[in-house]
Amino acid sequence: MKIGMLTGGGDCPGLNPAIRGAVLRLLDYGDEVIGFTQGWKGLVEGNTEPLTLERVEGIIDQGGTILRSSRTNPFAPGKEAQLEAVLANIKKFELDALVALGGEDTLGVASKLYTLHNVPTVGVPKTMDNDLDKTDYTFGFDSAASVALDSIDRLRDTAKSHDRVIVVEVMGRHAGWMALWSGVAGAADWVLLPEVAVDIEAMCEQLKKNYARGKTWGIVVVSEGVEIPGAQKGDNVELDAFGHHQLGDVGIGPAIAKEIEKRTGFPTRDVVLGHTVRGGSPTLFDRILGTRVGIHAAELVHKGDFGKMVALQGTEILAVPIQEAVKQWKLVPQDLYDTFVTTFNK
Amino acid sequence: MKIGMLTGGGDCPGLNPAIRGAVLRLLDYGDEVIGFTQGWKGLVEGNTEPLTLERVEGIIDQGGTILRSSRTNPFAPGKEAQLEAVLANIKKFELDALVALGGEDTLGVASKLYTLHNVPTVGVPKTMDNDLDKTDYTFGFDSAASVALDSIDRLRDTAKSHDRVIVVEVMGRHAGWMALWSGVAGAADWVLLPEVAVDIEAMCEQLKKNYARGKTWGIVVVSEGVEIPGAQKGDNVELDAFGHHQLGDVGIGPAIAKEIEKRTGFPTRDVVLGHTVRGGSPTLFDRILGTRVGIHAAELVHKGDFGKMVALQGTEILAVPIQEAVKQWKLVPQDLYDTFVTTFNK
Amino acid sequence: MKIGMLTGGGDCPGLNPAIRGAVLRLLDYGDEVIGFTQGWKGLVEGNTEPLTLERVEGIIDQGGTILRSSRTNPFAPGKEAQLEAVLANIKKFELDALVALGGEDTLGVASKLYTLHNVPTVGVPKTMDNDLDKTDYTFGFDSAASVALDSIDRLRDTAKSHDRVIVVEVMGRHAGWMALWSGVAGAADWVLLPEVAVDIEAMCEQLKKNYARGKTWGIVVVSEGVEIPGAQKGDNVELDAFGHHQLGDVGIGPAIAKEIEKRTGFPTRDVVLGHTVRGGSPTLFDRILGTRVGIHAAELVHKGDFGKMVALQGTEILAVPIQEAVKQWKLVPQDLYDTFVTTFNK
Amino acid sequence: MKIGMLTGGGDCPGLNPAIRGAVLRLLDYGDEVIGFTQGWKGLVEGNTEPLTLERVEGIIDQGGTILRSSRTNPFAPGKEAQLEAVLANIKKFELDALVALGGEDTLGVASKLYTLHNVPTVGVPKTMDNDLDKTDYTFGFDSAASVALDSIDRLRDTAKSHDRVIVVEVMGRHAGWMALWSGVAGAADWVLLPEVAVDIEAMCEQLKKNYARGKTWGIVVVSEGVEIPGAQKGDNVELDAFGHHQLGDVGIGPAIAKEIEKRTGFPTRDVVLGHTVRGGSPTLFDRILGTRVGIHAAELVHKGDFGKMVALQGTEILAVPIQEAVKQWKLVPQDLYDTFVTTFNK
Repeated sequence: MKIGMLTGGGDCPGLNPAIRGAVLRLLDYGDEVIGFTQGWKGLVEGNTEPLTLERVEGIIDQGGTILRSSRTNPFAPGKEAQLEAVLANIKKFELDALVALGGEDTLGVASKLYTLHNVPTVGVPKTMDNDLDKTDYTFGFDSAASVALDSIDRLRDTAKSHDRVIVVEVMGRHAGWMALWSGVAGAADWVLLPEVAVDIEAMCEQLKKNYARGKTWGIVVVSEGVEIPGAQKGDNVELDAFGHHQLGDVGIGPAIAKEIEKRTGFPTRDVVLGHTVRGGSPTLFDRILGTRVGIHAAELVHKGDFGKMVALQGTEILAVPIQEAVKQWKLVPQDLYDTFVTTFNK
Repeated sequence: MKIGMLTGGGDCPGLNPAIRGAVLRLLDYGDEVIGFTQGWKGLVEGNTEPLTLERVEGIIDQGGTILRSSRTNPFAPGKEAQLEAVLANIKKFELDALVALGGEDTLGVASKLYTLHNVPTVGVPKTMDNDLDKTDYTFGFDSAASVALDSIDRLRDTAKSHDRVIVVEVMGRHAGWMALWSGVAGAADWVLLPEVAVDIEAMCEQLKKNYARGKTWGIVVVSEGVEIPGAQKGDNVELDAFGHHQLGDVGIGPAIAKEIEKRTGFPTRDVVLGHTVRGGSPTLFDRILGTRVGIHAAELVHKGDFGKMVALQGTEILAVPIQEAVKQWKLVPQDLYDTFVTTFNK
Repeated sequence: MKIGMLTGGGDCPGLNPAIRGAVLRLLDYGDEVIGFTQGWKGLVEGNTEPLTLERVEGIIDQGGTILRSSRTNPFAPGKEAQLEAVLANIKKFELDALVALGGEDTLGVASKLYTLHNVPTVGVPKTMDNDLDKTDYTFGFDSAASVALDSIDRLRDTAKSHDRVIVVEVMGRHAGWMALWSGVAGAADWVLLPEVAVDIEAMCEQLKKNYARGKTWGIVVVSEGVEIPGAQKGDNVELDAFGHHQLGDVGIGPAIAKEIEKRTGFPTRDVVLGHTVRGGSPTLFDRILGTRVGIHAAELVHKGDFGKMVALQGTEILAVPIQEAVKQWKLVPQDLYDTFVTTFNK
Repeated sequence: MKIGMLTGGGDCPGLNPAIRGAVLRLLDYGDEVIGFTQGWKGLVEGNTEPLTLERVEGIIDQGGTILRSSRTNPFAPGKEAQLEAVLANIKKFELDALVALGGEDTLGVASKLYTLHNVPTVGVPKTMDNDLDKTDYTFGFDSAASVALDSIDRLRDTAKSHDRVIVVEVMGRHAGWMALWSGVAGAADWVLLPEVAVDIEAMCEQLKKNYARGKTWGIVVVSEGVEIPGAQKGDNVELDAFGHHQLGDVGIGPAIAKEIEKRTGFPTRDVVLGHTVRGGSPTLFDRILGTRVGIHAAELVHKGDFGKMVALQGTEILAVPIQEAVKQWKLVPQDLYDTFVTTFNK
């Protein structure tokens, strides 16, 4: 068989282990594997590189993606020509199957190619935010959250040394997995997620309680996706009906920091981790998960089980319809959040 | 309530997060928590330290165990006096429950105290080897295997620079989880586990094949528990019926290394990782897992659900009878091993 | 003797090793050592904690400072009452000597106390920026620049995966040591320092040259202290006479990123590392340097050699007049910069 | 010009940054650079690979050496044919200069080629042990000692948790730099170097003193090169005239551990770090040092300043006659050791 492969969306650790796992297994079957570079753009333009044993065997410890990526989406409005090019290239390159590694957007394309155009696709989920549904974890998350945790561990030193509160904004537009995981593991004094209503007053009361008993510093971790109801950039907004502040262009973290300083009087600083957590060598967890889902994607190809996404459920790797997975975000369940509250709400 | 807590057996990362999680939750209930130092020895001798908010809040990033540990087992033959002392101290300290964190041995004591002497115990599983049954993972494993992986990543540099094979012996007496996880993630050319019959010839053929195509170096990862049938220390032993060698006092890794060098002619070195992977700050995974099982242990205490061990199954923390968990080792399933074979058997 | 000790200014890794080194050596002499908490504020208010063997022996691997810090400066205009309190407390606590660990500001106070008020002070230099004169290196720099380097290493993965330029802003208001060290070690394609005139055009030409030969990504490292001549916040400013842009509130890094994107057309992102590099366990280099200068400060106390700052020159630790060290910044010499240009200007 | 380059002896972090620095600078001069693979073996056999911008620009973060290495020494007794082949290949490949990166052995060959056969050689020093004379530091040392320190930091967790002494054997046959640096930075309770007479009794007294005051654990760091006077493998030997033990095949660390346990009664374990510290991504310090000495080697080539080795003295890179550097080991000076004694001899 001849198999195409591509990676779309933001890069994250685990993509290379997954490419490697899939290619190694496909080679066992005697397949030829070609990579399309820069995601769907590569398939639009027909840009390829051969994926051989020599090319992939040494990439398991590399962050990013050797196939490079882009945000090209051939199903975006007005991109009909791109879609035609994709379909033409699938024919031209005589692909028997297409393995697409990516997040909601990339997998959505793979799903539509399968359902609307009968292209035999297999999806491999990737998201640093861990918000893709139907899989317990996606690779990239453990690596990125571990880097965030390292930062929080370091920031505690500074918070303690200067009797400060430090607000750390981490990734997570829809779901608070990274904030919750890195915050709890980093001994944060409060964690704010998109899934849970912001209670500025309760948070500030907790910080004051800590100061009163001699813990004269604090760490607050906040997802980038946390919103203050009604607030818009540049507005003077009501925060939780207990105050107001100027919501700047610089994100939710700085806004929260200002509000804490105002309400508690404690010197407060903010740090936005942003892109610094994206890259880097994948962790053990992500190398193993990436390898497993990559291998399983190859098996789906040879079973002819298309339109599916590989997923981790418990300790098993299995296949779920891509359509099911991209329907909604996987959010932090309320009871899991409640469990962790004991670690910061004292 | 008044709750006792202790940690037994070898230390590992995750014990402190678990102690912290349990104490923080018990404090929510208004309990008094006392730690017995050095495992069952502390309960035998009545050595304690109070476990307060201030004592535990900052320990999540610390390896080892603040309660210290020992191998004391009051159910060991001839230790009746120790057992009496344990039972007396449980009365004397007016314990309403006892939370024991440890491996098969420590949990076995907790189970017997419950079944034979009606002591209200809850177990929290810990093992770097990941070989405890009825739980998907135990804390300590991700941290230790990650340190092993770091070593393997570094050893590849040396193997490549010197066109050598390096044999890395990692922990795992009964089960090969650490060898398999760190070996696959470290791009090993072969992995030897206690669960799978050693095939020295197939391994050496693979290394020769690699050399022949220009990959003139190799990494082999082996569990300490791998055995050569019939071999005893100091013997000239048959290895897999394809050769023989002097099995030294220094473990299986060096023996395998000598055999590889003899059969392939490739310069081969061995490294025994041993204790260097035990300590260190717990990984994100182990901090979260430790925190969750610690909190859940506190909940079991307050539900009066004793004789149970907390366990991770899928994404849930739940309780299983300790007796069930310590009956047999959790071994690497054959099909999981088979899946990974594609990564090194080319 | 009775010795006071304090740490002032921003925290950095190496302070705890230095406190430890000094205390361990002073204890050899049979001295009593007391720490004043939060820098000069502690001496103003008389807040102390005893510095014993048990307190300091285990702190060598901890970031920040156990004595905590502040920006209090008793010689600042209008702070005469603070200065009087300092002098009164030095008498009240019967200090035979005062060891002050800090940067230009903290050491400046120590120097004036010695020259103007005859207080027997010894200074221990600390600055993450490495811009303190008369010493080859100060502790904190290696640790902070190493964290910056880790970030740059990770950002390369993302830059490569997305064919992007990433501009990384690092600390360094007066001197470009951190930008130069982390940039060169991180294989940056250009480095901008306060000491060297900004040549936006040359930089963009280099990036275009790289893209033209197939290196379709880039890393630029810039010190926070780099200035565009004549530019003010909110202005539309001329950049190097080759263009203009809106200089925002968010620092020089984002401004440079926008300019690069405008001139080259390459997608460009920026990252501001800021506080994330401050804390964390000190590196080997900083633990050894901190320990050595701490011990040497204790020796100066017992030689009665006051008004001096300990310094590293070559492989030796020696003493220089504080006044000499705080007169001017230690800048990156032009010829050192020129040497490194070969690594990015191809 | 046409320049040859090779790396000999054990691999270490910093070789790739040095290769890169030298090549980047030579390319500025318009030179052609070819690498001989596997050290002097490559020059004997004429095995080469071109060293271009594309080949070297991305290697600064890689451990080991892309040119690979060997222990081949064409001046070894009976290797006259190898020497002739080297001289013939220098002619055949029309080399205008030869840059050799390595330790005492490799540099010794470069020196003899220059003095005896007029070959224009430049040496770049490399040794993890930091025992090469005439340079303050060699790259590889900071990286390797940092990995050793990480291990010691982890081992403290285990020592504390189990009330144990742990003896850590690190590299250093002739000089104790790695033991002293990693031991002092790792808060060791005693450090044994080849340069200082072993005083087992004083060490054990210190450990007993620590236990008596409640520090019921300890770390001892020992260089592999430490010798017990008169002891031979397999002997029952006198240790320091205060006891005797069986000196095994497994090195000095285990022997010291047994002796400590015997004399103090404290449970004692040993760990031999060995090869695990060799590889891995070079630290900031080693990337900068490697880059600087590599660039300087290129400058020496273009000055025609041959038979020299580049060296770090203070903050400057300069050239010294290779002959001077390989005459004797650079040992830890007694007064430096004495300075550090305060950190463990309390």
